[in-house]
Amino acid sequence: MSDAAAIILAAGLGTRMRSTRPKVMHPLAGRPMIRHLLSACEARFGRIVVVVGPDMPDLEKTVAPHGVAVQRERLGTGHAALQAAPMLGGHDGDVAVLYGDNPLVSEATIGRLLAARAEADLVLLAMRPADPGRYGRVVTSADGMVERIVEWADADEAERAIGLCNAGVVCARGPDLVRWLSAVKNDNAKGEYYLTDVVALARAEGKRVRAVEAPEAELRGINSRAELAAAEAVLQGQLRAAALDAGVTMQAPETVFLAHDTRLSPDVVLEPHIVFGPGVSVEEGVVIRAFSHLEGCVVKREAVIGPYARLRPGTVIEPRAHVGNFVELKATTLGPGAKANHLSYLGDATIGAGANIGAGTITCNYDGVNKHRTEIGEGAFIGSDTALVAPVKVGARALVGAGSVITADVPDDALAIARGQQAIKPGRGFKGKGK
Amino acid sequence: MSDAAAIILAAGLGTRMRSTRPKVMHPLAGRPMIRHLLSACEARFGRIVVVVGPDMPDLEKTVAPHGVAVQRERLGTGHAALQAAPMLGGHDGDVAVLYGDNPLVSEATIGRLLAARAEADLVLLAMRPADPGRYGRVVTSADGMVERIVEWADADEAERAIGLCNAGVVCARGPDLVRWLSAVKNDNAKGEYYLTDVVALARAEGKRVRAVEAPEAELRGINSRAELAAAEAVLQGQLRAAALDAGVTMQAPETVFLAHDTRLSPDVVLEPHIVFGPGVSVEEGVVIRAFSHLEGCVVKREAVIGPYARLRPGTVIEPRAHVGNFVELKATTLGPGAKANHLSYLGDATIGAGANIGAGTITCNYDGVNKHRTEIGEGAFIGSDTALVAPVKVGARALVGAGSVITADVPDDALAIARGQQAIKPGRGFKGKGK
Amino acid sequence: MSDAAAIILAAGLGTRMRSTRPKVMHPLAGRPMIRHLLSACEARFGRIVVVVGPDMPDLEKTVAPHGVAVQRERLGTGHAALQAAPMLGGHDGDVAVLYGDNPLVSEATIGRLLAARAEADLVLLAMRPADPGRYGRVVTSADGMVERIVEWADADEAERAIGLCNAGVVCARGPDLVRWLSAVKNDNAKGEYYLTDVVALARAEGKRVRAVEAPEAELRGINSRAELAAAEAVLQGQLRAAALDAGVTMQAPETVFLAHDTRLSPDVVLEPHIVFGPGVSVEEGVVIRAFSHLEGCVVKREAVIGPYARLRPGTVIEPRAHVGNFVELKATTLGPGAKANHLSYLGDATIGAGANIGAGTITCNYDGVNKHRTEIGEGAFIGSDTALVAPVKVGARALVGAGSVITADVPDDALAIARGQQAIKPGRGFKGKGK
Repeated sequence: MSDAAAIILAAGLGTRMRSTRPKVMHPLAGRPMIRHLLSACEARFGRIVVVVGPDMPDLEKTVAPHGVAVQRERLGTGHAALQAAPMLGGHDGDVAVLYGDNPLVSEATIGRLLAARAEADLVLLAMRPADPGRYGRVVTSADGMVERIVEWADADEAERAIGLCNAGVVCARGPDLVRWLSAVKNDNAKGEYYLTDVVALARAEGKRVRAVEAPEAELRGINSRAELAAAEAVLQGQLRAAALDAGVTMQAPETVFLAHDTRLSPDVVLEPHIVFGPGVSVEEGVVIRAFSHLEGCVVKREAVIGPYARLRPGTVIEPRAHVGNFVELKATTLGPGAKANHLSYLGDATIGAGANIGAGTITCNYDGVNKHRTEIGEGAFIGSDTALVAPVKVGARALVGAGSVITADVPDDALAIARGQQAIKPGRGFKGKGK
Repeated sequence: MSDAAAIILAAGLGTRMRSTRPKVMHPLAGRPMIRHLLSACEARFGRIVVVVGPDMPDLEKTVAPHGVAVQRERLGTGHAALQAAPMLGGHDGDVAVLYGDNPLVSEATIGRLLAARAEADLVLLAMRPADPGRYGRVVTSADGMVERIVEWADADEAERAIGLCNAGVVCARGPDLVRWLSAVKNDNAKGEYYLTDVVALARAEGKRVRAVEAPEAELRGINSRAELAAAEAVLQGQLRAAALDAGVTMQAPETVFLAHDTRLSPDVVLEPHIVFGPGVSVEEGVVIRAFSHLEGCVVKREAVIGPYARLRPGTVIEPRAHVGNFVELKATTLGPGAKANHLSYLGDATIGAGANIGAGTITCNYDGVNKHRTEIGEGAFIGSDTALVAPVKVGARALVGAGSVITADVPDDALAIARGQQAIKPGRGFKGKGK
Repeated sequence: MSDAAAIILAAGLGTRMRSTRPKVMHPLAGRPMIRHLLSACEARFGRIVVVVGPDMPDLEKTVAPHGVAVQRERLGTGHAALQAAPMLGGHDGDVAVLYGDNPLVSEATIGRLLAARAEADLVLLAMRPADPGRYGRVVTSADGMVERIVEWADADEAERAIGLCNAGVVCARGPDLVRWLSAVKNDNAKGEYYLTDVVALARAEGKRVRAVEAPEAELRGINSRAELAAAEAVLQGQLRAAALDAGVTMQAPETVFLAHDTRLSPDVVLEPHIVFGPGVSVEEGVVIRAFSHLEGCVVKREAVIGPYARLRPGTVIEPRAHVGNFVELKATTLGPGAKANHLSYLGDATIGAGANIGAGTITCNYDGVNKHRTEIGEGAFIGSDTALVAPVKVGARALVGAGSVITADVPDDALAIARGQQAIKPGRGFKGKGK
């Protein structure tokens, strides 16, 4: 395990988000944005401390098992980073400071940040944005080392013409970083302690500072819902490209939304307009038709899903099974080759191989207090418009007549039927002149 | 109220639309395009007259209460504008002429048009399109005033190089405008009276003419279905940006379609693929999941809607209620914390707080002639696959057994059950060898 | 019929597709990509031979009735083209060689290719890509004729600066082409026979060679799933533009997916998020609402479909009929003005004019072995939550009570009802404290 440590600043509320939720808890590709950054960091840092604001229990849970330091007063990024110092207990290895609202920084970029420490005492991430706007500029000397960071407001025309911008992320040996952070002053317009000031402090000590460039798409911060949507678009673009490369057909990738952990095998076909929540795994040869929605489920080889299928957590679709339109499955296993093609709710059920679930089948799995299971044997045929009142078992090769309400178990190979008698009243047909 | 008046030209059929409908009746963001322009105009003009074609009763209804003038012969824009003159009865204030197929002109732009009248006798709207193409060019003098409009066909190379193009909208004192309009001649190739000719007539009188620039996106006309779709895209972009700014999360804004009047509160979350018809209001903390469709409804705090929920007009979702997949509500109130999670049709119903509506519940609200109401008391539990034949009342805390057809009222705290007896016939199971 | 012949190279597996399927069998706009090229070719060539790989029976079926030549060893494009020579039996007219994974070549471009043969012995297609990358460059002489093709690897700086790139398609008199193909050598790095070498061979004989330019969008090859998606996007753009031009309203064209053969009449309105499979025809004045999915069906004048309607093959919607949300129709005719508005499955059914199909109606058309028909007479009223166990007939103007299971025919004008008796058990209501 790396002996480098990361401090992630995540105390912000994000005023421009106009939200009651901590900024870094807003989701990207199905998980809080901070989890994206944590994933990249976990691969590169042996220890991680997250600086949170007071009263953010959900955030603390989300970053677990990583420790948190609470920043009680909002006195700037330098102050925030310093709150984590006690947690690192004089950590002698490298320490990097990253931002929770800057969640697309890649593992590769972090790797380059750490590697660059071999050549400099302090390393920072920089970028060349299409529009450098009011970012601080990175002034380098002839040998490519960083001279200083100049804030846009203080920059002269020549400095503003510099394309290399400070992204805010820094990395140094722990004791150096803590010493510099402790020396940062707040004698500025806003009265805040700025993390960026460690650059000047390091240079004042004659230390070598180096900038590592990374793509703007990784380093753009998220300060508004529009920027959140833009980051989501970047991430979806990456996820879709990876799926296409892996041999997934998507007729319209721009209409398919993947989660960070969606697993799709070669020769999976995705029609337009599909949404994946977290925890979905899809095997080779599966076709997922338009307007389907999947979360927390496994779809095995050559199954056909949708259109308009909803697979909820705990669902397993065995090979070659079919789930059709307006069908919802929850915590249900649909056996190999089984079919549930129309307008059904199958919850807490186990359905055997080759069973046929007719249109309008409903498992009545909830009595208002508890959930109960429905078991349907292999080769059973459930007639259309049937209610199965759980707990209930329908045996193998059993036949349930259409329109039945099944409240008692049906033995293997039996016919069960439960419906009213049909009465005909001549001449009492529809007289309606309604629209 | 402003004493300025507007004449809106809306008589066209729009040949390139290939439609039997008046061009300005084609919708944008859920209302006829003319209503967008009327909204902007109503904020700025005390009187509005719409020039329509003969036999356009739907359009006349749509523009009410504003008066209409009928242009019986299609003799050009100058002729059309003149038809409205009698309706304005010698109106002494300012009169602007706008175009119904140019519906994205903003209130701010109209304000600047009117304000510019302080500096000129005739004001016109102009734009600098990315591709100026065959637009008429606005020739200005050194002092920035308009010298003349030169049509593309008549322009020399230098004039064609001018980027400033005539958008056609004009504004002048009423008597001036009417005098100029009356003097416009049709001695041109098409034999039409062109509104643009008032510029030359004003200049001939030595009047001062000024151009007010506005964004091309506001001034582009709609002459085909492709241009209609392009205008819709501009409008949706504006509506989505406003929602994001207001604190709405949209994972994929480009897949969410808003109506002109959609009201979304902060911390509303919209998943991908959602369509809003007119008249929807959504309160804080509501989550609307993918593939939902809402029209004419109110969704209160922290409710969860969808995926695949359809809320139709007259629906009220009370706080923390849940509407799940393949569920349709029409003219129905779903009480606080109540749930209707799967495959249900609830029409003309009132559902009490905390009630649980099982999967496959159908309110049978229509007898072919009249609609009838269903009332479900608070805390009631409607078992799955139940039909409620309205008019019918299910009492508070009542329990309806799964698979029932309820035709008579159920008292508070009672159990109701209405289903056939189950019969088992051993050995008569499914022998099918079907696919 | 033209006496020109085409050889289409389609033997590739497409390693970068990561698929077990022949590359040209991957679909675009609802049909295998090779069928797009065949459509364009069928309009211009009297004979077509497709060169396939060994063991591609589906591909052979797909290209029928055109003949195939099997390339058993993968020895390059020149070798592949030569395999088709015997099938053309010394064809004396023109022979063109095209690529199955280059399916967007238009009929017009093929026309220009053939026409250019009047001026040259060998004609090739060329393009000017935005990024010419590593394409072979076409070196032309002062008179515009082709001197030679230079591969990127062999090109000097001046040659690499040439924008005109070889697209690989060639056309010549049959005997010339066969002679050149037979002379192509494999003395290159990969040991392959390259079709492109015929250019040098023709030039060595002093023949005139000419390049016909075509748009890059037509000539880009498909070598990966990402390129497949990009080609689909080009095609969808063309299909949508054609629909808009024809007078179809689409609020959001980018969310509507058309098939190659979708037929849409003027004044059809398409809401966002609609998917068309093959074989759909829609008449004037039809409104298709959001989230609808149509395949193999006819929708007649002024019908209203959706939202969330699924029309499957064999469905005919008669004029002014309505299909509402979560409704599936398969091999069913819905009569003029009839309505099926909510949560229904109607399969193998004939429904008369003006009939009303209540919410939750299910035709039980499948007994596990055979499909059976349901017939519903005109003006019939099917109460909600009804199961119709086929084969069954409901007469004209018959009324079926809500919640019935109909197993026997219902005469004209009769009332049928088939449901359990309702029992009330006071005080046995819902005690649940469940969530």
